[in-house]
Amino acid sequence: MKIGIFGTGMVGKSLADKLFELEHDVMIGTRDIAKTLYRSDGDIYGGPPFKEWIRERPHIQLGTFADAAKYGELLINALSGSGSLPALKKAGKANMRGKVLIDVSNPLDFSTGMPPTLFVSNTDSLGEKIQRELPRVKVVKTLNTMNAYLMVNPELVPGEHNVFLCGNDEEAKKTVKKLLRKFGWKEKLMIDLGDITGARTTEMLLPIWLRLWGKLQHPMFNFNVVVGRKG
Amino acid sequence: MKIGIFGTGMVGKSLADKLFELEHDVMIGTRDIAKTLYRSDGDIYGGPPFKEWIRERPHIQLGTFADAAKYGELLINALSGSGSLPALKKAGKANMRGKVLIDVSNPLDFSTGMPPTLFVSNTDSLGEKIQRELPRVKVVKTLNTMNAYLMVNPELVPGEHNVFLCGNDEEAKKTVKKLLRKFGWKEKLMIDLGDITGARTTEMLLPIWLRLWGKLQHPMFNFNVVVGRKG
Repeated sequence: MKIGIFGTGMVGKSLADKLFELEHDVMIGTRDIAKTLYRSDGDIYGGPPFKEWIRERPHIQLGTFADAAKYGELLINALSGSGSLPALKKAGKANMRGKVLIDVSNPLDFSTGMPPTLFVSNTDSLGEKIQRELPRVKVVKTLNTMNAYLMVNPELVPGEHNVFLCGNDEEAKKTVKKLLRKFGWKEKLMIDLGDITGARTTEMLLPIWLRLWGKLQHPMFNFNVVVGRKG
Repeated sequence: MKIGIFGTGMVGKSLADKLFELEHDVMIGTRDIAKTLYRSDGDIYGGPPFKEWIRERPHIQLGTFADAAKYGELLINALSGSGSLPALKKAGKANMRGKVLIDVSNPLDFSTGMPPTLFVSNTDSLGEKIQRELPRVKVVKTLNTMNAYLMVNPELVPGEHNVFLCGNDEEAKKTVKKLLRKFGWKEKLMIDLGDITGARTTEMLLPIWLRLWGKLQHPMFNFNVVVGRKG
């Protein structure tokens, strides 16, 4: 399947590598191709600049947001929270109409220092904002509660732990679950939180996620919902 | 030890029973004793009205908020979120000065229908508001991420799962950990999230907790943070 990924950060790269390994055709979309290929800063995990990363991967295409939106039969938003809505507007509604958009982003607000807060929460969410902006797109929020490596390799954390998903379209969620299975997620560890308003509940996990990261000094952990007997 | 509990709901009652079982002396504080003993509505789990519950427990005292505040060497806020600050004001700062106050409440706002949202979140929390209101009290936020029965009996959910705590005073947290151990929580399953600002991160678990409750149709579950290797 042809997959368009918005975002050239850790999450976009990690998903792109995994999707190519799974024999999908991948195009990464960025705001300005020239600028993206000019930047020489590495990523936060000590990886090389994007231009080197993409040079080593001739099988992965690079385009504008609109190119990736047109190209993908399935789309993934792997942008920063603040970058998501402007980028998706640039990508063009017509290019995305009717497609599934996996939203992995989180509404992190770094403007008031560390740790970041959320620029939308509680009574709304970034997932919902994206769905409202793109009513003809089938937004599925998932994978936003863990680090980029764990998303595509759940075995990096041993034992049972969950991936949450939510969205308004049942067929779209089935498509996403199929992909999650390919990433290594067992069906019984996927928790469907219902419609897209569930996005506010998973985005609101970020504050405790960030605090645990600070405490553990590494991001290789995940949440498991342990269920007892009704009563 | 003498323990004062604010609140006559499920959480207050569950904690009172357990603390008595652990040979503590317990006084429950309420806004208006006469009204509390007049009410004939049961609790949400089908339990009897408070007046019947307390009649069966002559060993548990009932007083005003101020009585319970004076009585307790250790205090517990088991009130509703919206009731917490007004009640703690009534309890009287002088009665609480220097004491440990375990805050189990959540800032749930039912005013806009179900599911409730949070009336404070993201950049502040109810735990922090209480600490600011009572600067001479050692507030420890804990147990607010699970149902009342599980708080005092972690084995109701099998396997490993966590209780979070946070607060500004290290000695107070040690006191609370000791109590949590008596409730059945293993030390290694307690996660200290640091100072009282951690309260916003656990209070923000409520939205997903409530959604999981709706999905599972029962509240007997808990979160476990599963940790992998650093790298």
